[in-house]
Amino acid sequence: MNNDLLLRAARRQPIERTPVWFMRQAGRYLPEYRAVRNTVDFLTLCKTPDLAAEVTVQPVEIVGVDAAIIFSDILVIPEAMGMELIVEEGKGGPRFPSPIRSVDAINALKAIDPNKELRYVMDALRVAKERLQNRVPLIGFSGSPWTLATYMVEGKGSKNYRHIKELIFSRPQEAHSLLKKLSQSVADYLCAQVDAGANIIQIFDTWGGILAQEEFEEFSLQYIRQIVEQVKKKNVPVIVFCKDCGHSLKRIAAAGADVVGLDWTTDIGKARNAVGNMVALQGNLDPTMLFSTPERIEQGVKSILQKYGNGSGHIFNLGHGILPETPVENVKAFIAAVKTHSVQYHTKAKK
Amino acid sequence: MNNDLLLRAARRQPIERTPVWFMRQAGRYLPEYRAVRNTVDFLTLCKTPDLAAEVTVQPVEIVGVDAAIIFSDILVIPEAMGMELIVEEGKGGPRFPSPIRSVDAINALKAIDPNKELRYVMDALRVAKERLQNRVPLIGFSGSPWTLATYMVEGKGSKNYRHIKELIFSRPQEAHSLLKKLSQSVADYLCAQVDAGANIIQIFDTWGGILAQEEFEEFSLQYIRQIVEQVKKKNVPVIVFCKDCGHSLKRIAAAGADVVGLDWTTDIGKARNAVGNMVALQGNLDPTMLFSTPERIEQGVKSILQKYGNGSGHIFNLGHGILPETPVENVKAFIAAVKTHSVQYHTKAKK
Repeated sequence: MNNDLLLRAARRQPIERTPVWFMRQAGRYLPEYRAVRNTVDFLTLCKTPDLAAEVTVQPVEIVGVDAAIIFSDILVIPEAMGMELIVEEGKGGPRFPSPIRSVDAINALKAIDPNKELRYVMDALRVAKERLQNRVPLIGFSGSPWTLATYMVEGKGSKNYRHIKELIFSRPQEAHSLLKKLSQSVADYLCAQVDAGANIIQIFDTWGGILAQEEFEEFSLQYIRQIVEQVKKKNVPVIVFCKDCGHSLKRIAAAGADVVGLDWTTDIGKARNAVGNMVALQGNLDPTMLFSTPERIEQGVKSILQKYGNGSGHIFNLGHGILPETPVENVKAFIAAVKTHSVQYHTKAKK
Repeated sequence: MNNDLLLRAARRQPIERTPVWFMRQAGRYLPEYRAVRNTVDFLTLCKTPDLAAEVTVQPVEIVGVDAAIIFSDILVIPEAMGMELIVEEGKGGPRFPSPIRSVDAINALKAIDPNKELRYVMDALRVAKERLQNRVPLIGFSGSPWTLATYMVEGKGSKNYRHIKELIFSRPQEAHSLLKKLSQSVADYLCAQVDAGANIIQIFDTWGGILAQEEFEEFSLQYIRQIVEQVKKKNVPVIVFCKDCGHSLKRIAAAGADVVGLDWTTDIGKARNAVGNMVALQGNLDPTMLFSTPERIEQGVKSILQKYGNGSGHIFNLGHGILPETPVENVKAFIAAVKTHSVQYHTKAKK
């Protein structure tokens, strides 16, 4: 690997500067992505390995991030398990026209073989790996069981998450039955991604933050812990990102992952003090700061670098996915600021 | 005051049991509210003191809460300052068709005299006070400057809050100019509410949680602190509720309010350990738990009571506003559970 900064930072091994990538980096803010996307719909893009690999590699070449993340969607798992999925990008997000609202619907979900139903993801990983030519690591990912279950039960974006909450509060055994099925699928899927070439894995728990702390442990974190245990057997680092879960930072850090992702409402300096001896940290610039000026972005980057302080164990990222309208010149300013200003926090010479 | 449990709990004085009320308690889950609301539109209801007072008193009589909160909307302030406000309840929420997007728009906002432009709120408080006949305290309220500014700049509900974030990151002086104007209006408005009969005041910072910790301090909490200082001169207790701001609990507790409201993602036991010697705490059942069964609700109530533990200083509430479709029988089960199970945590005999 020519540039393995991400992998070394994830393992808190010495590095020359802080690596940087960002969630949703293969996406609509890039004109080159939109050009590809204009030729096919979103799910066809996910399911066409050549095209998925192409947009996966784009941000490495165009903005110079230190890793590629395979272009896909977390909802391909429920689709593979038998649910109809409709994605109209920019039109209110993905949705399941027949959401899970009964035990029968849970029981009807199929067990998946990721190398069959999700073969297209594995093929995309292989093509992307080939095209990357070992320039940077390739990140595989999945949604957490809780986050997938939330989408599957709500059926679409939700304001109050009434249906999934009703499930966990009124019929917790059914909820656990769904989450167990999903955990097996997610673990198998992530292990298959490693076999197909992923060098590091990220688990996204986008909706962990809608739960109170006890419910977060019971319905989300315990399943993430089980999946991390499975994936770690493949000897790749694992990143766990639970949005809006700063209240459970210590528990998340103890879940077995190498890296904990932080949203922008957690102070990364305080987080390092609390758990920096257990895990590396990833994050955490407010994605909306990329709508301001290069000067303000540079200041924001310097502030986060300073809070984290000296030594390895920090992977720079945004605190959530990059927004579609983000100006590319500001993205470049963000990455340049990380690459320039992080050097002083590291002492290791280029190996 | 026949039942002053809320006022005593807010001041951490001895009580016989934990008081309970809930945010948005005068609202659509009540058939009696819907009956009134069917006769007039939302803003007309706010602006008709007799009707506003009627729905204010309803939950005291129907479900037996320990306080009334004046029926109104936080966005009446921006409307009074000159912005056109459209509220179509149940249709995507309130909106400002001409949001604040320039210095000129900020400068054009009028200073308000709450006894003129918002006289209808003061009249509603006076009528409600009369009808309550000192049965329970009457709560006055306002949105925080930051929360009002977020609505005024975004113009409507937002997913990413791009416009207000762009304002604070790119043109912070303009943002402060807007927030200063709002702070003066909010302080004057809340003081006028006390003069019109409010026994206790709550400040809602619904959108504080979209900010990183430093920005929360700079753009939200410092203005709340100034307002609390003004309102406290009126010798009423003040409650500050900042949603999704558990990361700044100690700072919020130090802002001068008597009570800090907690959303459901903060553990009330840990919160009491952290700041319970400084302030009373309000909260914090997940509002969606009211969609489950009376048994599960009772269990949730008992858990929160146990976490808070013995003695005064807890005001039971939900962790956010009650949802419109909540079954009334579950609301009654919630209130009964608080009234029954909280007695064991208090030793004071009825005065």
